Amino acid sequence: MLGTLFAASALTAPLAAQEVEDVALTPGGVVKAADPSEWRDIPAEDLLVMTLTPDAAGKTREVVIQLMPEPVSSAWTQNIRTMARAHWWDGLSIYRSVDNWVVQWGNGEDPENPEPKPLPGGIVPTSEDAYTIAWQDGPIRTLWGARGRREVEASSQLAPARKRDNSPDFSDPYSDAFSYVRGLPVAVELGSYEVSDGKAPVMTRPTRVWPVHCYASVGVARDLSPDAGTGAELYAVIGHGPRQLDRNIAVVGKVIEGIEHMAILPRGTGEYGVYETEAEHTPIVSVRLASDLPEQERPRLRYLDTDSASFAKYADVIANRSDDFYKVAAGGADVCNVRVPVKSVED
Amino acid sequence: MLGTLFAASALTAPLAAQEVEDVALTPGGVVKAADPSEWRDIPAEDLLVMTLTPDAAGKTREVVIQLMPEPVSSAWTQNIRTMARAHWWDGLSIYRSVDNWVVQWGNGEDPENPEPKPLPGGIVPTSEDAYTIAWQDGPIRTLWGARGRREVEASSQLAPARKRDNSPDFSDPYSDAFSYVRGLPVAVELGSYEVSDGKAPVMTRPTRVWPVHCYASVGVARDLSPDAGTGAELYAVIGHGPRQLDRNIAVVGKVIEGIEHMAILPRGTGEYGVYETEAEHTPIVSVRLASDLPEQERPRLRYLDTDSASFAKYADVIANRSDDFYKVAAGGADVCNVRVPVKSVED
Repeated sequence: MLGTLFAASALTAPLAAQEVEDVALTPGGVVKAADPSEWRDIPAEDLLVMTLTPDAAGKTREVVIQLMPEPVSSAWTQNIRTMARAHWWDGLSIYRSVDNWVVQWGNGEDPENPEPKPLPGGIVPTSEDAYTIAWQDGPIRTLWGARGRREVEASSQLAPARKRDNSPDFSDPYSDAFSYVRGLPVAVELGSYEVSDGKAPVMTRPTRVWPVHCYASVGVARDLSPDAGTGAELYAVIGHGPRQLDRNIAVVGKVIEGIEHMAILPRGTGEYGVYETEAEHTPIVSVRLASDLPEQERPRLRYLDTDSASFAKYADVIANRSDDFYKVAAGGADVCNVRVPVKSVED
Repeated sequence: MLGTLFAASALTAPLAAQEVEDVALTPGGVVKAADPSEWRDIPAEDLLVMTLTPDAAGKTREVVIQLMPEPVSSAWTQNIRTMARAHWWDGLSIYRSVDNWVVQWGNGEDPENPEPKPLPGGIVPTSEDAYTIAWQDGPIRTLWGARGRREVEASSQLAPARKRDNSPDFSDPYSDAFSYVRGLPVAVELGSYEVSDGKAPVMTRPTRVWPVHCYASVGVARDLSPDAGTGAELYAVIGHGPRQLDRNIAVVGKVIEGIEHMAILPRGTGEYGVYETEAEHTPIVSVRLASDLPEQERPRLRYLDTDSASFAKYADVIANRSDDFYKVAAGGADVCNVRVPVKSVED
C-alpha cells in the first residue's frame, strides 16, 4: 500500500521482503496475518464501477468507489444508485482537477451546451441536515481518540475516559474521536449525559457521526446552502484530507481502486481548476453498480473489519512503527493515515 | 490556493469574487488584506530551482523548493547546496512515483548502470540525531496546539496552559504543538521544567522541534539506520501528510511552486513504485540555487510571517470557516491544512 523511502542504492537490496513478512512490526504484516474471519465482503450494491476512456497508451482505466452504507449520506447514495441504473453519467466527463484538492466529474462545463443534463426520474430530495447522523442509529462500536482506542457498547459509555498510559494518541482537531462505518472513516462528536446515582445515564445532547474527507474520499458538489447537491456531480480528494469540508458537504464513499487514474490527470487552468478546452476532459464511458454487472465482471472486494483484533493492532502499529526503517515511534496517528485495508476476495 | 466545490451549474455564477474579496471570512481574503510589512522575502540561497524536460505538449516544467533554514536539517541542506553548485543532479531523473505517497528523484534505477553517480567533493556527514533540534536554538515564537495559539518568549513559557474557551483546537496526535520556522512547518515536543518558589524555572528535558511531512514537503531518501542520507536522493510528498515519517528521516524543505508537475506523473509499476523502463523517467535538466542564477531568472518569492497578526487570523479563519459556502465551522485544523501563504514579490 505504502512504500518505503530507501535511497535508490538500497532499492536493489533484499529489503522488500521484510516489509511484508514482519508480521508483528509493520501494518502490512499485521494485515497479511489477519484471520480470514476478520475480513468482510463489500456488498455488490455498495460498489460503483466507473470506466473512463483508455489513456493515451490505450490502457483501460477503471475506478471503483465503495459507497457509504446506511444510514450515512443515505439520500445521496440512493440517488447515485438511481443515476447509475439510468446510465446517467455515461458520456459525461471529468471536467475539473485542482492540485492538492479534488478531481470532479458529472455534467461538466461545456461552453457550447451550458444547460445541465436533465436528471433521471426518482431522484429524492437531499438536506444539509443529513451531513451528520445521530449515533443512536448505532453504526459504530469502536472509537479512536485522544485517549487511545475504546470499545463502546452503549451511549452511556461514550463519556470521556482518562487517558491510558502509553496508549497511542489518536486525537483529532476536527472532532472528539474517529471511527469507521463498515470500513469507511467517520468522525464523532460525543454527546452529553446526565448521571444520577442509581439511575441509567440520560442523554441531554446526542452523539453525532459524520463521514470524513481523506485522500480518495468521494463527495457531492453542491451550490450554496441550502442546496445540498443531488449526487449527480461528484469529486474525489487527491491531496491532504480537507477536513474543513466535513459536515459542510455530503461524503458518499471512497475510491478503493484506481484513484491514481484521477490523481495523475493534468490540473485545470480555468477558474476553480475547470478545464478550459473539451480536449482536456476525460470522458466517462460508464458508471455502474457492481450488482448490475454480469457476475464475472464484478469487482469482488473485502475490507478488514475495523472492530477486529487485527485492525486494532494495525492501528497501533501505524501509530508506533518499530520495524527496521523507523527509529522513533510517532506515538499517534490521524484518521486519514489509518486507512482501512481492502483486498480482492481472491487474495 | 484551494478551490470551492460548487456544482458545475453554479460555476458560471459570479461566486468567485466573494472568495477573494470577503476579507474577514475567508483565508484568501485575510491573506489579501495582510499588510505589506507582514511578508518576508525568501533568501535566494534558500530557493532551489529544478527544471525538468518539457512535458509531452512542449510546456516547460519548473519546480521551486524552499529549503529549511538553519538550524533545521542543516547538514543536508548544506549538502544540497553543494550538489546544486556542482550541477550534480543535471541529467539524472525522477525515477519513482507512488500514489498518495511520494515522487522521488536522484540517481535513479538504471538497470544498465547500477553504480551510483559519485558525489561531488565537500559532502558533509549527516546523522539521524539531527532529525530533531533543541528549541533553545530559538527558531519559534508562536505555538499552535490543543489549547489554541500561544505566543512564547522564553522556554519557561512553554509549559502547558489551560485551554481558552472557544479557542480553535490545533491538537496534533503526532506532537504537543506545531509551529513554523521561517515559513516552514515544524512539530514541537514540549520539554519539562522544574519550578521552585522565587526561582527561575529549570529545564529538565529540552523542548524539541522537527520539520513535518505535509503535502509537498521534500525529504531525504536513505538506507537503513544509522544511514541518514546525504541529500542526493530526494522525494516530495504527493498525498496525505505521512507524519509517521517525522523524526525518522530528514525533511529539507517544501515545494512552493510546481508541485503539480510531480503529482501528475504516472505512478511507477515496479517494486516500491520505481519506473520499470527508462522511457518512464522524467529527466532533470538542471537544479540550481536561485542565488546562482542570473538576477532576471531568479524566482522572487515571499511568505506571510507566521508570527504576524494576519497569519494568526488566517489560521483562525481556516479553523472556523464562516463564509457563504461553509455552514459548520470545523473548530480546529491540523498543521498540514494551515499552509503558509507564498506569493511573488511582484504581486
